[in-house]
Amino acid sequence: MTDVSIIGGSGYGGGELLRLLLSHPCVEVKQVTSRSHLGEYVYQVHPNLRKRTQLKFSDPAALESVDLLFLAQPHGQAQHNIEQYAKLAPKIIDLAADFRLRDAVFYEKWYGEKHAAPQWLGKFVYGLPELHREEMATANYVSGVGCNATASNLALLPLVKADLLDLSAPVVIEIKVGSSESGAEGNVGSHHAERANVIRTFSAFGHRHTAEVIQEMGIKDVSLTMTAVDLVRGVLATAHAKVKEGVGTKDLWKAYRAVANENPFLRVVREQRGIYRVPEPKILAGSNYADLGFELDENNGHIVAMCAIDNLMKGASGSAVQCMNLMMGWEETMGLEFAGLHPI
Amino acid sequence: MTDVSIIGGSGYGGGELLRLLLSHPCVEVKQVTSRSHLGEYVYQVHPNLRKRTQLKFSDPAALESVDLLFLAQPHGQAQHNIEQYAKLAPKIIDLAADFRLRDAVFYEKWYGEKHAAPQWLGKFVYGLPELHREEMATANYVSGVGCNATASNLALLPLVKADLLDLSAPVVIEIKVGSSESGAEGNVGSHHAERANVIRTFSAFGHRHTAEVIQEMGIKDVSLTMTAVDLVRGVLATAHAKVKEGVGTKDLWKAYRAVANENPFLRVVREQRGIYRVPEPKILAGSNYADLGFELDENNGHIVAMCAIDNLMKGASGSAVQCMNLMMGWEETMGLEFAGLHPI
Amino acid sequence: MTDVSIIGGSGYGGGELLRLLLSHPCVEVKQVTSRSHLGEYVYQVHPNLRKRTQLKFSDPAALESVDLLFLAQPHGQAQHNIEQYAKLAPKIIDLAADFRLRDAVFYEKWYGEKHAAPQWLGKFVYGLPELHREEMATANYVSGVGCNATASNLALLPLVKADLLDLSAPVVIEIKVGSSESGAEGNVGSHHAERANVIRTFSAFGHRHTAEVIQEMGIKDVSLTMTAVDLVRGVLATAHAKVKEGVGTKDLWKAYRAVANENPFLRVVREQRGIYRVPEPKILAGSNYADLGFELDENNGHIVAMCAIDNLMKGASGSAVQCMNLMMGWEETMGLEFAGLHPI
Amino acid sequence: MTDVSIIGGSGYGGGELLRLLLSHPCVEVKQVTSRSHLGEYVYQVHPNLRKRTQLKFSDPAALESVDLLFLAQPHGQAQHNIEQYAKLAPKIIDLAADFRLRDAVFYEKWYGEKHAAPQWLGKFVYGLPELHREEMATANYVSGVGCNATASNLALLPLVKADLLDLSAPVVIEIKVGSSESGAEGNVGSHHAERANVIRTFSAFGHRHTAEVIQEMGIKDVSLTMTAVDLVRGVLATAHAKVKEGVGTKDLWKAYRAVANENPFLRVVREQRGIYRVPEPKILAGSNYADLGFELDENNGHIVAMCAIDNLMKGASGSAVQCMNLMMGWEETMGLEFAGLHPI
Repeated sequence: MTDVSIIGGSGYGGGELLRLLLSHPCVEVKQVTSRSHLGEYVYQVHPNLRKRTQLKFSDPAALESVDLLFLAQPHGQAQHNIEQYAKLAPKIIDLAADFRLRDAVFYEKWYGEKHAAPQWLGKFVYGLPELHREEMATANYVSGVGCNATASNLALLPLVKADLLDLSAPVVIEIKVGSSESGAEGNVGSHHAERANVIRTFSAFGHRHTAEVIQEMGIKDVSLTMTAVDLVRGVLATAHAKVKEGVGTKDLWKAYRAVANENPFLRVVREQRGIYRVPEPKILAGSNYADLGFELDENNGHIVAMCAIDNLMKGASGSAVQCMNLMMGWEETMGLEFAGLHPI
Repeated sequence: MTDVSIIGGSGYGGGELLRLLLSHPCVEVKQVTSRSHLGEYVYQVHPNLRKRTQLKFSDPAALESVDLLFLAQPHGQAQHNIEQYAKLAPKIIDLAADFRLRDAVFYEKWYGEKHAAPQWLGKFVYGLPELHREEMATANYVSGVGCNATASNLALLPLVKADLLDLSAPVVIEIKVGSSESGAEGNVGSHHAERANVIRTFSAFGHRHTAEVIQEMGIKDVSLTMTAVDLVRGVLATAHAKVKEGVGTKDLWKAYRAVANENPFLRVVREQRGIYRVPEPKILAGSNYADLGFELDENNGHIVAMCAIDNLMKGASGSAVQCMNLMMGWEETMGLEFAGLHPI
Repeated sequence: MTDVSIIGGSGYGGGELLRLLLSHPCVEVKQVTSRSHLGEYVYQVHPNLRKRTQLKFSDPAALESVDLLFLAQPHGQAQHNIEQYAKLAPKIIDLAADFRLRDAVFYEKWYGEKHAAPQWLGKFVYGLPELHREEMATANYVSGVGCNATASNLALLPLVKADLLDLSAPVVIEIKVGSSESGAEGNVGSHHAERANVIRTFSAFGHRHTAEVIQEMGIKDVSLTMTAVDLVRGVLATAHAKVKEGVGTKDLWKAYRAVANENPFLRVVREQRGIYRVPEPKILAGSNYADLGFELDENNGHIVAMCAIDNLMKGASGSAVQCMNLMMGWEETMGLEFAGLHPI
Repeated sequence: MTDVSIIGGSGYGGGELLRLLLSHPCVEVKQVTSRSHLGEYVYQVHPNLRKRTQLKFSDPAALESVDLLFLAQPHGQAQHNIEQYAKLAPKIIDLAADFRLRDAVFYEKWYGEKHAAPQWLGKFVYGLPELHREEMATANYVSGVGCNATASNLALLPLVKADLLDLSAPVVIEIKVGSSESGAEGNVGSHHAERANVIRTFSAFGHRHTAEVIQEMGIKDVSLTMTAVDLVRGVLATAHAKVKEGVGTKDLWKAYRAVANENPFLRVVREQRGIYRVPEPKILAGSNYADLGFELDENNGHIVAMCAIDNLMKGASGSAVQCMNLMMGWEETMGLEFAGLHPI
């Protein structure tokens, strides 16, 4: 068994990670830290884990060495402590935004502050297996992914990989998200009475996850517009772009099928009948799938490319476990077999 | 008192219209028809009207003459019976899509069938007061509006009116809608277990309401992408467009304030603090307001223009009553004073 | 016009009250206080009031004299300041729990602390018009009502008034509530991600509103069990009790019809067909109706008596306005005409 | 591998069963029938199963012999075909209500019709492992369980098993349910616009599942009151009963811990802090746990006993798989390891 610990286990990402690791066949969870819930049973915070573990939240200052360390803290903490963490474990996976960007100047542009450990940026592999699977086999340090960036990147992946986009046109990505994205701490708008029934465009431009799309897709003129809807888990990214002249539906099918065949967690959803004809986060809660779809207006080349994920799974902890599997040389899908529910 | 009747009163639009007319100070509702609910009390179908009226649904074949007739049937019926209806009342307001488009060829293109009464198309005024207030003062026939078209047209109105858009760029409108849009009959996907928690992009292109945006805004390269979310009432249209070179936030404020000043039901929502900083349909249930907002990326002229409405009010029955007020020479806001609720 | 002010206007009860008063034909709102939102426009907190008022929140220390003062503060404040408030206005309506109970010992039992102004308890009339309509005509001080107490009291009213209950059996009231009950401040469980989709029995026994049921219904063996469900506005109280021997469905119909005839906001809902056969808070948002229903098991006399209300209307601000109308000698329903929406 | 087939696989119970069986390590699914979806891929109806199986719905007339046959049809069909099904498989588990009751007269009383195969009633074991674990080891025929009956029976189990109830007092069970209970076909009230935001007491007395509580708990004076709330999956049963004189909280803890220790899927939830202090179906979606809790009013012996389950899992397909495991001599929890999600 491989020993792992989680720093920052009382948040939503940390809790989901813990759920996955507790049922992972090759892993033993040694410690889960939380300052605010120190000494409490983890199931008191994550009630789904009752009868699954007797672990209590421990003090981050009392961490012991392990084979692999997961960082699941709020953004901005890991970069200050990375040297210390690296002494505790030879392999680290960070779920926060601290090491997602490769370039310190680019980081500063999007996060509005200097990076505290710029020399570490180059050591991390960006944590989306669909983009960096091979590097992960030998990586010691893997970053997390932004959930909105992941939905966006995977929506665009088949198009970018097959070079089908006309990049002289802007790429506009409309993203709809559930309330778990705001984290366990929430914000003033998180109160159920204010957050239920919303269609709230809380960010028209400039969301930080945009940086990950620019970096990973190599697209410069891209914008993310974020809208909160009444749902707990789930993201749908709907990308509006233009395909190159001559690109038709057949080319698109080919490109989409190719990525779905190469990636165990990608599926193409494009049905002619039934209720579920397009990608929908609704049925993905708890699953690591990313469902992809597209629709093309052949008159003008306008393509609508969609990707649905569970933000806490493929958009965070599920991808992190998938990265671990690849780093450790295990089956990529191990511990991530849950199919999702219908109806839900 | 002005006598009015409603043909097709058991649907959501008809029910909402009935609610408004029952409390309108200048109107008396004579008959409300429904074939499927013939003989039932209207409050058995619209339970909010219990203790408000003892009206029963009557037979459409037994309609008597009135001063003004509202048509609230499913699309495609009014055009076959308009001659007959015109004999019953000197003034008609149709909530359906039958008489929204001015051109029979354009109608056929978008609705896939020949119009049954093309000679009537020119007699109707398009039923959005914010676009045709003056014509309504003398109109006898006023059409309904598509709810998604209304959210789109009002999102674009300040920009079009002030001529701020660069129309060489496409206009992409992302629309999120609640479940009352599918009508009281619903469809296979309307079952709560399938429809709750959704973010379902049920139409990427080609929604029929697009035709009303093209006609009323004079924009050719415009697309509507429709996404169902978990909400009963409400539409948010988020239009992505490009402003003309040199247009800045100040110009936009001026354009938005102008339309808000001219129109009693338009409001500009663009706050720097609080929970409700942008237009949201959540707080508009039952109100006739359309809330407008915008955000500009001054680097590239990308504008995100938003409009939130209650699809059954400003997007249907509320606008119809507003049209009636204008046609009859009454105060435009009469019977439409409900402010909406917070929280809800 | 009668001048009124509201102390504590940024909460949900205060906001709803303000909405009602702003459109009340006999009233002018002079001041609305809020310490935390001092100086802000009221529409920044209550966005439904945008374009309805330019009022700003004012300092409670700067209150001027008015004809009638509404107190909408959190529980426990009014009793400390009532002498001072009484100098500002000859008539006071308090929405909080400070003056609901008539007896200081009883108050201490349920609230766990001595009352700060016990000599004032006897001066207040309990603020449910259906129970104390006549006293209100001459009252200067009227208390608020607990929303859960109101649903319970009105569920039992027809049975108690017609003396149909066998009070040797306990009365068990199961209450289901929406999230606006927790107030604008909320609590740790109010985060949408934790509060959505819940069926959470947060109080099995001992809810403070029980005291109001004991006091007003004269029933000693009564318990309230509180369950939070996924809804913003609304309460359904389902009372399980036993009718006296020989009482049948006809007796019940008679008792229910009597109270519905005597009270403009009470309706009996007991249909044999349609979707809405029983009382439901869903269709009551924004309305002041209380819908009553019952079902009797004639084999054993077990009666299930239901009452649905909007907790912010009939359960708080709506009843307060109704009290004001009675205190001022106005039409009881004035300013409370909104019928509620369907669907919603 | 044990070969199994499912008759009636397009409903919610059948779909959930299929999901569980597809990932069960000892089972191979041979056929899944559906008349209405004949020839379609099962993932077109149950979209969570995309990329998990290439099975298509087959004709029930073309069923082949298997080791174990699951019946997941609507109620009333299995009893007409049981002879034929018994020829196809030596072991049968029926999810419907056809074989839940042991007595044909009792069946007729609750279902209003004669049973079509009364001689088979005695051959079936009632399908709740917590009540009939030992009999299942040798059973060939196991019935399904009513989801509401299961929540009720498990809420009462610790009390009945330890003989703590005073059965001279009536047992009143208030049950709150999600929309998946109405089945994939739904009913007139299932439309999202009518079913969202509801607190709808659709059955005050006489729900058929009551019969299973009477039969299995041996309690005669018991009633189930059913209330629909806004949720897809989940049931909470809240039983109001009276404990015998002298029974205190310590006795209750002992009784609850005993059943939790004996049953892998029962948990006691009774916390003093945190958000999740009581049983809640919210966190049980997809899990087979039944969470139990209680609260006692020591003044009068009134006990509130709660049980939360996922109606499609512990209340239907999860229990069916658990029964299969016991019938086959496998580990009881096999294939039922999913912990549930938080948040969701």
